[in-house]
Amino acid sequence: MSGPTKSARELWGGHFATDAAPLMERINASVGFDKRLWAEDLRGSRAHARMLADRGIVSAADRDAILAGLDAIAREIEEGRFVFDPKLEDIHLNIEARLTERIGEAGRRLHTARSRNDQVATDMRLWVRGAIDRAEALLRALQAVLIDKAERHAADVMPGFTHLQAAQPVTLGHHLLAYVEMFGRDRDRFASARRRSNECPLGAAALAGTSFPIDREATARELGFDRPMANSIDAVSDRDFALDYLSAAAICAVHLSRLAEELVLWATPQFGFVVLPEAFTSGSSIMPQKRNPDAAELVRGKSGRVIGHLVALLTVLKGLPLAYSKDMQEDKEGLFDAADTLELCLAATAAMLDGARFDLARLRAAAGLGHTTATDLADWLVRVKGVPFREAHGIAARAVRRAEERGCQLDELEDAELAAIDPRLEPAVREVLGVDRSVASRTSLGGTAPVRVREAVAAARARFLGEGGS
Amino acid sequence: MSGPTKSARELWGGHFATDAAPLMERINASVGFDKRLWAEDLRGSRAHARMLADRGIVSAADRDAILAGLDAIAREIEEGRFVFDPKLEDIHLNIEARLTERIGEAGRRLHTARSRNDQVATDMRLWVRGAIDRAEALLRALQAVLIDKAERHAADVMPGFTHLQAAQPVTLGHHLLAYVEMFGRDRDRFASARRRSNECPLGAAALAGTSFPIDREATARELGFDRPMANSIDAVSDRDFALDYLSAAAICAVHLSRLAEELVLWATPQFGFVVLPEAFTSGSSIMPQKRNPDAAELVRGKSGRVIGHLVALLTVLKGLPLAYSKDMQEDKEGLFDAADTLELCLAATAAMLDGARFDLARLRAAAGLGHTTATDLADWLVRVKGVPFREAHGIAARAVRRAEERGCQLDELEDAELAAIDPRLEPAVREVLGVDRSVASRTSLGGTAPVRVREAVAAARARFLGEGGS
Amino acid sequence: MSGPTKSARELWGGHFATDAAPLMERINASVGFDKRLWAEDLRGSRAHARMLADRGIVSAADRDAILAGLDAIAREIEEGRFVFDPKLEDIHLNIEARLTERIGEAGRRLHTARSRNDQVATDMRLWVRGAIDRAEALLRALQAVLIDKAERHAADVMPGFTHLQAAQPVTLGHHLLAYVEMFGRDRDRFASARRRSNECPLGAAALAGTSFPIDREATARELGFDRPMANSIDAVSDRDFALDYLSAAAICAVHLSRLAEELVLWATPQFGFVVLPEAFTSGSSIMPQKRNPDAAELVRGKSGRVIGHLVALLTVLKGLPLAYSKDMQEDKEGLFDAADTLELCLAATAAMLDGARFDLARLRAAAGLGHTTATDLADWLVRVKGVPFREAHGIAARAVRRAEERGCQLDELEDAELAAIDPRLEPAVREVLGVDRSVASRTSLGGTAPVRVREAVAAARARFLGEGGS
Amino acid sequence: MSGPTKSARELWGGHFATDAAPLMERINASVGFDKRLWAEDLRGSRAHARMLADRGIVSAADRDAILAGLDAIAREIEEGRFVFDPKLEDIHLNIEARLTERIGEAGRRLHTARSRNDQVATDMRLWVRGAIDRAEALLRALQAVLIDKAERHAADVMPGFTHLQAAQPVTLGHHLLAYVEMFGRDRDRFASARRRSNECPLGAAALAGTSFPIDREATARELGFDRPMANSIDAVSDRDFALDYLSAAAICAVHLSRLAEELVLWATPQFGFVVLPEAFTSGSSIMPQKRNPDAAELVRGKSGRVIGHLVALLTVLKGLPLAYSKDMQEDKEGLFDAADTLELCLAATAAMLDGARFDLARLRAAAGLGHTTATDLADWLVRVKGVPFREAHGIAARAVRRAEERGCQLDELEDAELAAIDPRLEPAVREVLGVDRSVASRTSLGGTAPVRVREAVAAARARFLGEGGS
Repeated sequence: MSGPTKSARELWGGHFATDAAPLMERINASVGFDKRLWAEDLRGSRAHARMLADRGIVSAADRDAILAGLDAIAREIEEGRFVFDPKLEDIHLNIEARLTERIGEAGRRLHTARSRNDQVATDMRLWVRGAIDRAEALLRALQAVLIDKAERHAADVMPGFTHLQAAQPVTLGHHLLAYVEMFGRDRDRFASARRRSNECPLGAAALAGTSFPIDREATARELGFDRPMANSIDAVSDRDFALDYLSAAAICAVHLSRLAEELVLWATPQFGFVVLPEAFTSGSSIMPQKRNPDAAELVRGKSGRVIGHLVALLTVLKGLPLAYSKDMQEDKEGLFDAADTLELCLAATAAMLDGARFDLARLRAAAGLGHTTATDLADWLVRVKGVPFREAHGIAARAVRRAEERGCQLDELEDAELAAIDPRLEPAVREVLGVDRSVASRTSLGGTAPVRVREAVAAARARFLGEGGS
Repeated sequence: MSGPTKSARELWGGHFATDAAPLMERINASVGFDKRLWAEDLRGSRAHARMLADRGIVSAADRDAILAGLDAIAREIEEGRFVFDPKLEDIHLNIEARLTERIGEAGRRLHTARSRNDQVATDMRLWVRGAIDRAEALLRALQAVLIDKAERHAADVMPGFTHLQAAQPVTLGHHLLAYVEMFGRDRDRFASARRRSNECPLGAAALAGTSFPIDREATARELGFDRPMANSIDAVSDRDFALDYLSAAAICAVHLSRLAEELVLWATPQFGFVVLPEAFTSGSSIMPQKRNPDAAELVRGKSGRVIGHLVALLTVLKGLPLAYSKDMQEDKEGLFDAADTLELCLAATAAMLDGARFDLARLRAAAGLGHTTATDLADWLVRVKGVPFREAHGIAARAVRRAEERGCQLDELEDAELAAIDPRLEPAVREVLGVDRSVASRTSLGGTAPVRVREAVAAARARFLGEGGS
Repeated sequence: MSGPTKSARELWGGHFATDAAPLMERINASVGFDKRLWAEDLRGSRAHARMLADRGIVSAADRDAILAGLDAIAREIEEGRFVFDPKLEDIHLNIEARLTERIGEAGRRLHTARSRNDQVATDMRLWVRGAIDRAEALLRALQAVLIDKAERHAADVMPGFTHLQAAQPVTLGHHLLAYVEMFGRDRDRFASARRRSNECPLGAAALAGTSFPIDREATARELGFDRPMANSIDAVSDRDFALDYLSAAAICAVHLSRLAEELVLWATPQFGFVVLPEAFTSGSSIMPQKRNPDAAELVRGKSGRVIGHLVALLTVLKGLPLAYSKDMQEDKEGLFDAADTLELCLAATAAMLDGARFDLARLRAAAGLGHTTATDLADWLVRVKGVPFREAHGIAARAVRRAEERGCQLDELEDAELAAIDPRLEPAVREVLGVDRSVASRTSLGGTAPVRVREAVAAARARFLGEGGS
Repeated sequence: MSGPTKSARELWGGHFATDAAPLMERINASVGFDKRLWAEDLRGSRAHARMLADRGIVSAADRDAILAGLDAIAREIEEGRFVFDPKLEDIHLNIEARLTERIGEAGRRLHTARSRNDQVATDMRLWVRGAIDRAEALLRALQAVLIDKAERHAADVMPGFTHLQAAQPVTLGHHLLAYVEMFGRDRDRFASARRRSNECPLGAAALAGTSFPIDREATARELGFDRPMANSIDAVSDRDFALDYLSAAAICAVHLSRLAEELVLWATPQFGFVVLPEAFTSGSSIMPQKRNPDAAELVRGKSGRVIGHLVALLTVLKGLPLAYSKDMQEDKEGLFDAADTLELCLAATAAMLDGARFDLARLRAAAGLGHTTATDLADWLVRVKGVPFREAHGIAARAVRRAEERGCQLDELEDAELAAIDPRLEPAVREVLGVDRSVASRTSLGGTAPVRVREAVAAARARFLGEGGS
């Protein structure tokens, strides 16, 4: 039998064994990214220490030493003096080692009736809860900007698009409120995720619970959880809280990408509907009028990475037996990056919109292009004159044809011309021709009539911003 | 300039133009799959017709003709006599055309103050609501099976795994209840999706609302929606309801894949923990003892397609401007398949588990392998004897080493042997050695002690099945 | 101990056991979709039968009976007379059962030295190879359309976009040739996939090979494979051929989505660059000028499902031990749908482009908007007058500012105006101002100068269509 | 009209405007991650500078100053003295600014006939090419380890699994060679990606090419590209090279996940097939025999993130019009992480396998469990005794039943027992009973017979390691 292939050995510069340790450290150590959980880890440890003392599992003196030690470590980390050591694998062991270094054996007692499995699950849930709260606040701020703009533009007409072709006139305020609804659902989605995940794994220990007389209600309460998790195996196996966050984030990122796409389109000279704030665009040194909508493009593109992180974690968990498997360490980096990305995109979108200037004249001009009020004319015949549906459509089509021939808009046809098309096209029909009259006529609930949009703004202020309306 | 390339032409057997119509029909027509919405479409149309008559927009006679026509169409479809025509694109036009064929102009009047855009959104929301309700019921049934099994096996020990290595003994009932929690969260997730999506788009018309004096509250109410959607543009642009369903389904499918993985593993001769019901396995004509866990494998694998459908729709919607774009027609097939897949997997898993027989002797034997109670011994020293943490661990390690030398389990060491390791290892330590005593000792809330598991079963019956406990 | 929960039972309308069989059939049977492999299955069986006879494993009489039986079955299927029975699970057993029904025991002998595992792998590879060949031909046809259009528009200017803002004038031909390159890479990607997958699994049997003296070279050769697969376990475990197809298809679908996005944008009145053929758009009965680019939108959206199918199969295979697992049955439906989708999108795109009419006047007008030749002016100063880079940019910026003030294009500035900006701006600078001169000047290899574009067209004809140029 | 909502303002701590700049820097600046391209950027710039001088576009003196400046910058970066400034956005501007700082105006001349668009595409292609070469070498090293092990275990029997149930005996060497095939396809896939992407975008400039008389062949050659890209718009719009890398990486990661899954399973006490090297496992301080297969679990899990990165980039590019859009900046981080992840997983897997010890006795014992040679017996009857297929299966089934009753393996049945089952079961049948004889009999090409496995090892050495065999 031949010995090991030369080629494999050479590639590794000798025996694999000698490389094993650094390789293992690189693949295994997580402190490089999970140090981000330091505050949550300390918080969980404080609650655990207090509970252990309250239940007589550790002494009051130990507790006090532990709490003082954790405070000191918090300061070390805040001040950048803490040395994170990958040989100690993760943030939990790094802190525990430092605590023991500082306060001796009592430091190890902190780990009584606890395991890294329930500890990391607790830290992650605390972290995700914080991320949810940040997303919620940023969504609210974005809604506030949109609602302000919607109010300002409650009666400013623009083309309502289907298939990116102007279909009917709407108001800009109405269009912006569509996004307020989307972001409202996002907030609700994050709130559902928060409620669902706000249970405390602490006390599940490695996976089976513990024989120490711990008080899981107490730690759950102190950490702001609604209750302890009901099953200790589930407590250490579950990563639904991360999947819930990621799916809410992915859907929200898709909403942002739709808004961003519109900003990119609207900022082209061809559309010319919006001028984005300089701060969020890049220019050209010699084409001073050129403004690249960089921030909007990035918001649009970054939806990809959030979706990617969701896919990644679903794939990690697929087919994973209970309880804890090391694969689950893969829950962190993608989640952190998804949260950073989402928060940045929400903030940038709000600021970008806040500074955006809409070109109302171009919006208005585009609203009327293509005889977008032809359906209004047909509806008027049905509604007011009782003309059968199909006949009304035929009359509208003839009116459009006439306007095309004349090269004018429908409301620029003269009374006689209208009457010539059909005697029932009396001057009163003008109440729905013209983009302003068209939008004003759409008074159905949730419709684009300015009166409805203003009501919707007030309702949105109440529902989403907790304001009494304006 | 050269004419068109010969090669391209030949490939298409002539002029593209001649192929355009069938190609367009193939890419554009949706009736092949959206006919599945027929019942929802009829239901929405009935509500719309009644409302139109109530508001005086169509006459009572028209309404009655419409309702009778729709009923007749329902019978035609149920009896397989309805001819779906791809030239009429989708289910909505197919039904409208047939209605008009049957009842004349009144059939077209049904479309007053409505557009296909709000119509399809309404149909889809009704369909998804039904799918949510089916998923909910199937999840509940699966939980019921699991809770029954958990009760039966509340005290039967098995190895609790971390890294797929036995870590500590747990009870089979406790393990099964972990899945009850997961599926409980799935139910909650579907319930959130239902609540969030239970708003009615009808009346949004093409995108701007309508000038007809419709009553959106009335149609929303009749169709069982909580309220009309607040913004007409959002009403026709939004597909969050599908994304919500798909992300809940994907997470649920991942849960199922974890359970399926365990069944596949446990059914190997190497584990030998479970015998799956014959009906859900396939055998070999000459190896009668061979049982392939086909259904479990398929449940595990089918998580892939549900995740894939979620990715597909997120990608479709990414970067899509408002309001309706034809891309959104891509919301249907993946959603239908995801629901079919999920429902089938839930039903198969429940039935498979219901008929599964656990080999309690093998589970028990495996629970003790690897001195899984060594931590119990250490914890006992800390808890009862006040031995410092680190020292207790050292003593436990020595006890394990001794048992290894003797080739026995920890609880088979004799009193003298224990005392020789450390005098504080008095016979009382046996209360935590042995897998039964180990599990019995883990009495923390949510822990694996049979007393806790029985409480958890009762609580689960109350929380998830609405039963008073047993 | 309580009996089974009532609720679970009720949901299932009785005992699970009674539902097991139909449930298992629904989750397990694949003939509903794998019947699509019938022709490949027959082809593989014919090759296998001939080889078995050539090696003396079955008699010539058996072989002849088998071949005649398979031919008869082919006719039954072609003529729609074959009854596919889900109880027989899959296409393979359906055909085998029918064959045995027709020709008796010899029918079962066909399965000598073969297993469903190598059989399905062979069928699938044959099918994928066919799909690759279809994709290849459709890509070639699409390239042919693009190359024809590129030649026609080799000198027609349009704006070259970055950030969807006009950056520099290019020619439409040049722009279209960018897609020819993309689709060329797609063809290469499919060709790589074909080469990599064109190995024959037949003879791997269940997973270990066989003790029958088969001739795998012979069957591989007859089926058009390059060689037998080298390892029998790999032969039945591998689904790379499907992943290769799906990733090539996903990348191609993304290319199509980019082109489709441009068609949707360009077809807006705002851009107005293209009029799509009526056959691929939908209109409005009363807004005759409205043309919704349905087909383009669908091509754009359908990229989502192809990506989704890729994700699905990657997820299915993730973490799957060797050799065959039933999860792998999930390789089919997504693959079939991906191929159908891709082929339809390729055909529709080619036909849609073939009938598209570009509005050359609007393209030209848009090309000059925004002083897109300012960089040409700066480059001219550097290149011809040796002006330092930074200074040249400053001069160009001043020229743009002057044109802005005048409300004219750069090439409409008079000689004196230019000279007033900088004396080095001699009339000769006009050779690069104006969009035609700008594009004509970009003669670098692969650049947009019409002379280069015409060369590129000829080269593309040779590389991609195997033509001598024109 | 109301003023801006208070809530939105407060959230942002004042005016959005004041936050815009840092927000934009955070979302827009890429130097934090694209600094990783520094060596590629310098390499591309050197080639560009030499070409500019060769073509007389810059002077020899400028060229020399540029080259010296770039060398100095290389040293600054290598020695950690270079200050990367996010205000300068990306690596390209950081280097250009520093170069100009060092050598004055000549530094800016380097950017003649070049744009960041072609520059970043060139840098990325160089980087991906390097990543491909690293992946290739690591795959080769992993194959070498597998081939060594396969040779050592060419005749050691183990169960061949289907459905994770033992189906037929195979040899461990044969099983390991299945992975050699997979990784061989991975190498081929990377090689295809390399060939497809090895074209040079440099000279495409912003998107249209340039009017400077550059020599794209020269820069392409110097940078080791096969040729310049044919179309300048494609050159700056295309990210296929990244998609090709990511899809190859995702498929390879799935292969690794399958191997890792087997290692995790095989390392359980229940299977007990392998002992993983200590360096790649983690233990328990008190359960010394416990070995958690952390590295294998991480390799399995990390397939998720690679798939996620592929999805992310496909989503980013979906629907993106030509040419460069800022969204494309999202091509980098996922790609870098995918490459880091893949390289780490490949190295860890090779090292882990290299140190793995297989328990040959347990593998052998498991191979015979379940009468895995029953098909051999049936095949023998067909092959040697001419027994009809169906009858042979019946006889085999009776033999299995008899062995089950006796509690023995098939080859432990006595001659008389065999004869009693069927007189044709002569002692010669023993040549295929027993796991060794079973595997020895499967001599078909690519089959598991040791003689074939040894041939396959030699062939693999030649195909994959370029060795003459052993």
